[in-house]
Amino acid sequence: MFEEYKEKRVLITGGIGFIGSNLARRLVQIGADVTLVDSLIPEYGGNLFNIQDIRDAVHVNISDVRDMHSMKYLIQGKEYLFNLAGQTSHMDSMSDPFTDLEINCKSQLSILEICRSYNPDIKITYASTRQIYGKPDYLPIDEKHPVRPVDVNGINKMAGEWYHILYNNVYGIRSCALRLTNTYGPGMRVKDARQTFLGVWVKNLISGLPIDVWGGEQLRDFNYVDDVVDVLLLCGLAENASGKVYNLGGKPVVSLKDLAEMSVQANGGGSYNIIPFPPERKKIDIGDYYADYSFAVDELNWQPAVDLETGLRKTFEYFKVHLQNYL
Amino acid sequence: MFEEYKEKRVLITGGIGFIGSNLARRLVQIGADVTLVDSLIPEYGGNLFNIQDIRDAVHVNISDVRDMHSMKYLIQGKEYLFNLAGQTSHMDSMSDPFTDLEINCKSQLSILEICRSYNPDIKITYASTRQIYGKPDYLPIDEKHPVRPVDVNGINKMAGEWYHILYNNVYGIRSCALRLTNTYGPGMRVKDARQTFLGVWVKNLISGLPIDVWGGEQLRDFNYVDDVVDVLLLCGLAENASGKVYNLGGKPVVSLKDLAEMSVQANGGGSYNIIPFPPERKKIDIGDYYADYSFAVDELNWQPAVDLETGLRKTFEYFKVHLQNYL
Repeated sequence: MFEEYKEKRVLITGGIGFIGSNLARRLVQIGADVTLVDSLIPEYGGNLFNIQDIRDAVHVNISDVRDMHSMKYLIQGKEYLFNLAGQTSHMDSMSDPFTDLEINCKSQLSILEICRSYNPDIKITYASTRQIYGKPDYLPIDEKHPVRPVDVNGINKMAGEWYHILYNNVYGIRSCALRLTNTYGPGMRVKDARQTFLGVWVKNLISGLPIDVWGGEQLRDFNYVDDVVDVLLLCGLAENASGKVYNLGGKPVVSLKDLAEMSVQANGGGSYNIIPFPPERKKIDIGDYYADYSFAVDELNWQPAVDLETGLRKTFEYFKVHLQNYL
Repeated sequence: MFEEYKEKRVLITGGIGFIGSNLARRLVQIGADVTLVDSLIPEYGGNLFNIQDIRDAVHVNISDVRDMHSMKYLIQGKEYLFNLAGQTSHMDSMSDPFTDLEINCKSQLSILEICRSYNPDIKITYASTRQIYGKPDYLPIDEKHPVRPVDVNGINKMAGEWYHILYNNVYGIRSCALRLTNTYGPGMRVKDARQTFLGVWVKNLISGLPIDVWGGEQLRDFNYVDDVVDVLLLCGLAENASGKVYNLGGKPVVSLKDLAEMSVQANGGGSYNIIPFPPERKKIDIGDYYADYSFAVDELNWQPAVDLETGLRKTFEYFKVHLQNYL
């Protein structure tokens, strides 16, 4: 599968991060010529341990997507761009909205402007987020649901997504966007909740600490990282995807309490506390969320293959061996 | 009417521009304590002639909304903020997307952050635009219509609008947004189409030149500037407006060809040419547009009072006397 990427020049922004490194590994297996760009900012997702097994098989370029000069060099000559770099923390976007703006808006415009000037034939796949929907009007949420972001990060990611679609529509720079839901698996950030709350759960349970479940009744959907890598690769090859936006999602939909139970199970032990929402999180809580991802299934022929139980088991297996490299 | 503004401290960004100066004039008549902030960048709407009759009755502060330091000083102690400054040219947003981002996104975040830190009790009314809807799915467009901007300006204005609503919802900074449609009247920019195509029409007809009508069949709605001033003042006082977004609109809805006829009539002579859309405009053309503004009518008790024929007549009367000051 995905033989089309063999010997192709592929650039991944955020390439040393969680999803980027898993994507890179798959592309290396296929035989692609892979360049990773990552800022390695400690608060973000980049971790060199993520690529220790493929370090010599990829081009590693440490730079920030805000650095237009390095991006201008790196984008030239590439055939595919997986544009995954971003500020992902909702709380950080509220305490420092300008940094979020620089990364999630301005740098996206830079990247697209560079593509327009120097590499208009590149094919871009952009990692957007389900966060932009805000509090659902109905469930499951399909792509026609209004977007109504509840934090600065959501507003800026929404703008970043729109820039990609706009540059596709106006300039013919082929771009599509995936609205990712909760993604988990080997390589995710676990030292804090900046990327996903599930990271902290994994760290705590493995370390023998209880986990805090805020609320507990909220429903969520999840994707194991390998399934996200699949759909990224599908998007890159799908000519009919240009200018389109696709929800990701997975089954089963579970409550956070059920997820805590499953995590304890996958860890082979541990405990969790149900606690009330902290007030500053409550303000931006969206209640239940899960996606209708049938558009991606129909158009991209994607099907998430790893069920939650299996995915959690693999995740705990990975971090039980490698936790020290993620603290 | 609007006696509540008497002796109140009011800040208007873009206050020397078209709508800002008309709003300022009304507030001066009411007896408000008015401060105007404007960058007077030649490509934008600011024109000191707009305030020549009220120059001594207002505080004029030349600075740019991108200048956080001056904004930090100016926002403190104000009771009302009419936040009208913006980059408005769609073409400029495409040729220089970063400047549009700085003004329409970053500066809006700055203003809101300053309000949060130094003046959380201020009441903000933000000038958004119908441009963010993009190509209509149905007509008239109400506020539930999906937003789907077709240029960088639309994306950035959408983000700017969302920041205001977010800061209302999360921090309690009372803010609402008006999605303006085509606004016209005394004080508008006429030297080019950066603010509105109608400006160039007025200039050309008064100068004895023909006007170019692109397409001609597209339907549009219009507001005379006095009606927009009314609804801005209503918004500032309406506590129920906080966190809400309102369409503006007016009657009659006319085709651009009919508008050209009416303009020739209002001018007392002249001619127009129907010409095909230039290719680079066609890409971002939205076809017909007109708004359902019943939400503003119901909630704010607004009713646009100046019909298009009267408004055009007043506009031509004004510019026939003052055109030289706008070239």
